[in-house]
Amino acid sequence: MDAEGFKEFGTEMMNFITEYLEGIRERKVLSSVKPGYLRELIPTEVPEEGEKWQDVMKDLERVIMPGVSHWQHPQFHAYLAAANSYPSIVADMLCGAIACTGFSWITSPACTELEIVMMDWLGKLLELPSKFLSCESNGVGGGVIQGAASEATFVALLAARAQAIRRIKSETGLDDGYIIGKLVAYTSDQSHTSVEKAGRLGGVKMRLLPTDEHLQVTLEVLMNAITEDKSKGLFPFYAVATSGTTNTCAFDDLEVFGDICRQENLWLHVDAAYAGAAFACEEFRYLMKGIDKAHSFNFNPHKWMLTNFDCSAMWVDNAKELEQTFEIDAIYLRHHAQGQVPDYRNWQIPFGRRFRSLKLWFVLRIYGKKAIQEHIRTHIALAHEFEQLLLKDGRFEIVAPVLMGLVCFRLKNRSNEENETLLKTVVERGKIYVVPTKVHGKYAIRFAICSKFTASVDMAIGFQEFSAAASDLFGKM
Amino acid sequence: MDAEGFKEFGTEMMNFITEYLEGIRERKVLSSVKPGYLRELIPTEVPEEGEKWQDVMKDLERVIMPGVSHWQHPQFHAYLAAANSYPSIVADMLCGAIACTGFSWITSPACTELEIVMMDWLGKLLELPSKFLSCESNGVGGGVIQGAASEATFVALLAARAQAIRRIKSETGLDDGYIIGKLVAYTSDQSHTSVEKAGRLGGVKMRLLPTDEHLQVTLEVLMNAITEDKSKGLFPFYAVATSGTTNTCAFDDLEVFGDICRQENLWLHVDAAYAGAAFACEEFRYLMKGIDKAHSFNFNPHKWMLTNFDCSAMWVDNAKELEQTFEIDAIYLRHHAQGQVPDYRNWQIPFGRRFRSLKLWFVLRIYGKKAIQEHIRTHIALAHEFEQLLLKDGRFEIVAPVLMGLVCFRLKNRSNEENETLLKTVVERGKIYVVPTKVHGKYAIRFAICSKFTASVDMAIGFQEFSAAASDLFGKM
Repeated sequence: MDAEGFKEFGTEMMNFITEYLEGIRERKVLSSVKPGYLRELIPTEVPEEGEKWQDVMKDLERVIMPGVSHWQHPQFHAYLAAANSYPSIVADMLCGAIACTGFSWITSPACTELEIVMMDWLGKLLELPSKFLSCESNGVGGGVIQGAASEATFVALLAARAQAIRRIKSETGLDDGYIIGKLVAYTSDQSHTSVEKAGRLGGVKMRLLPTDEHLQVTLEVLMNAITEDKSKGLFPFYAVATSGTTNTCAFDDLEVFGDICRQENLWLHVDAAYAGAAFACEEFRYLMKGIDKAHSFNFNPHKWMLTNFDCSAMWVDNAKELEQTFEIDAIYLRHHAQGQVPDYRNWQIPFGRRFRSLKLWFVLRIYGKKAIQEHIRTHIALAHEFEQLLLKDGRFEIVAPVLMGLVCFRLKNRSNEENETLLKTVVERGKIYVVPTKVHGKYAIRFAICSKFTASVDMAIGFQEFSAAASDLFGKM
Repeated sequence: MDAEGFKEFGTEMMNFITEYLEGIRERKVLSSVKPGYLRELIPTEVPEEGEKWQDVMKDLERVIMPGVSHWQHPQFHAYLAAANSYPSIVADMLCGAIACTGFSWITSPACTELEIVMMDWLGKLLELPSKFLSCESNGVGGGVIQGAASEATFVALLAARAQAIRRIKSETGLDDGYIIGKLVAYTSDQSHTSVEKAGRLGGVKMRLLPTDEHLQVTLEVLMNAITEDKSKGLFPFYAVATSGTTNTCAFDDLEVFGDICRQENLWLHVDAAYAGAAFACEEFRYLMKGIDKAHSFNFNPHKWMLTNFDCSAMWVDNAKELEQTFEIDAIYLRHHAQGQVPDYRNWQIPFGRRFRSLKLWFVLRIYGKKAIQEHIRTHIALAHEFEQLLLKDGRFEIVAPVLMGLVCFRLKNRSNEENETLLKTVVERGKIYVVPTKVHGKYAIRFAICSKFTASVDMAIGFQEFSAAASDLFGKM
């Protein structure tokens, strides 16, 4: 494909994309294809000769779109938001054109340096403690773009593990294998599955601590767990607190986690994958009180800040801990500026990385601070609007405080099975898509505000779906 | 930004991209900026109000381009190829527009199913054993797109570790921590740093075995290492063989690795990150003889198959091993088709994933088999052309067989320091970019064919650079 072919193809794709996104409301939000639908729609092998791009375009509606669940649909209320935006898509085009592999500074200094500065921009936007900013910590701390929050949790765990092994080894002379077998980490039973997974992959125990009525781990529970484990000869070394859980958007008390982790010498990582974006707004920063006591912090601009996946922003207060964990030397990797600049391969699990900071730069500049704040505030206001509709109806109860763009609710005085039937009925009607959770054993429906196209009318539509289905199933009252 | 703004911005970006790529020969291949150059070129914070996209475009040449080392430049001969192509860039636009998060099948069946089928297409293109193809193994084996080869190596190690722990535990009753401390894996001292890193992150010993004059691990060396470790009470469990090392593009003997791994019950992973693409051509498949004995295999279409990063193709002969390692349940993740289809989050480290198979689909269709084979063959022919220029000159020696698009050479009868001076002189002249390696203690220059713009003339240019610099430094003879 030559340059002219690319421009024609790209223009046609932009037409397709704008028609897709601007007309997305007309589509069915959840795909209803059967498993295995796609294989029979396309050939079984790579074609011998190249095909025309026009033939590829023709297949998008035939092959791909029937199997797409539309995350950008205004009535997609499942999981949590997955961002996209036009500036971000254009930035990714440039990223693909430059196609540098930024494993070290020399491979394209702009790739590393724009990332350092964008992470400072983002950190300032959230008013993170200065220890996390490269520009304010003289490069001791700093930010890095990971692929996903799950990677950030795992990266922090691996660095904490390496740190703990070094420390315990020097104090006790025990060997690595023995120490790994005795390491123990802590998180709440409300944490995302990827936190438990990080423990498993790291080969260490990850205790899921029970939560109180606010879905928080209390000081007592955390302290008792640590004391108990120490008395068993285990080595507590790492804790993950969540700011905005996937289940209900609950916030751990970072003061509680922070104080105990400092006292007991545990690495505290804060997973704010979804809700961290809200700290761009002053009025929500009370929820991150205690963040100065954390060693690492992460949130996903690719969830709620208009930036396409993959863009998971992670900060650490001491980058040396990452470098000591991940760095391995090779002659072909050396360069003249080593030591003066980060080589980001040593801040992450994979070796290669692309020029992801371009997305952030484009998005932060073209939207600006005010529009980003407005995007957050709009979603939260919509969630409260939906909450009010439910409460006014009288048949529903809200099972967790609505703090961000997520409403968790259920039919009052109805069993888990009845609530599950309600959810299934609504999803089968096909107008909106939601998934469930459980709160203290009670089945609840999660209604998340996800798309930037979601508006007030969609709260009415969503409410109507639940209200009508509830009436059909259980009568008006 | 509205749809019209996107189209204008995107059109302007396509113009920029085509001018950049079609005119890339005129640029200086290696960036010469000083560390920290970028910070002073841009503001220190996110702007309050959004800026015009035109202002962002204006900054590309001013801020970004001076700091880019041009991987797509025809005289970029460092590291190994990093692919890009116009069809791949267009596919990524669509990926960004759909912006689904494909952690489970239900989140967009097309995202999972196109990946399954594309991995079958790719596996057939390489003539991989049928056990690796989903379509021919009834879904027992199959492929998955990882972000990088380093992740594939680590994923396989984690699955092998889990498998080994289960087995040893059931045989001995030992606990996990003790077993992890005694696990040992094997690879060659020629392997990529990411293999050693996988061992470190997995908390297990990774032995880098010495290689013979062909830069291969011999049967004797591998067998002796395993026997020795077993006699020490260690548990051998995993081996990584490389098909095309980063150092010199050496190929491990997969028959040797395969036979011993089968016999000793080790998981064999084959890392063909760069050279695997060449198996699309029948005449290079002799280099993967023994692949049927491997448990997993990986190569990067984002290196040498015209597909943009990140697209690392990994196959396993038993997907259950991955799923058992990575799967963690949550109520919000359940769906009606579970068990009938892969949920790809359970085949990888991160939780989220994007619709990367679109890139493969576009590239494989728009190029077709013949053009892909021609791309590979052209690069290899160019490498041989460069090799001949060096040999004809008489002053240089080739230090490793030229099998793919990489030529490793040095000045004959000159010290390591003198060869290092030659490399530095050439890189400082700024016409081409190369990095060094060491072969059996001897400093060597790696000259890789990377860009799809690289042509015969660039072999002459590259040779001229070394020839002229050698003459300047050491005289004509």
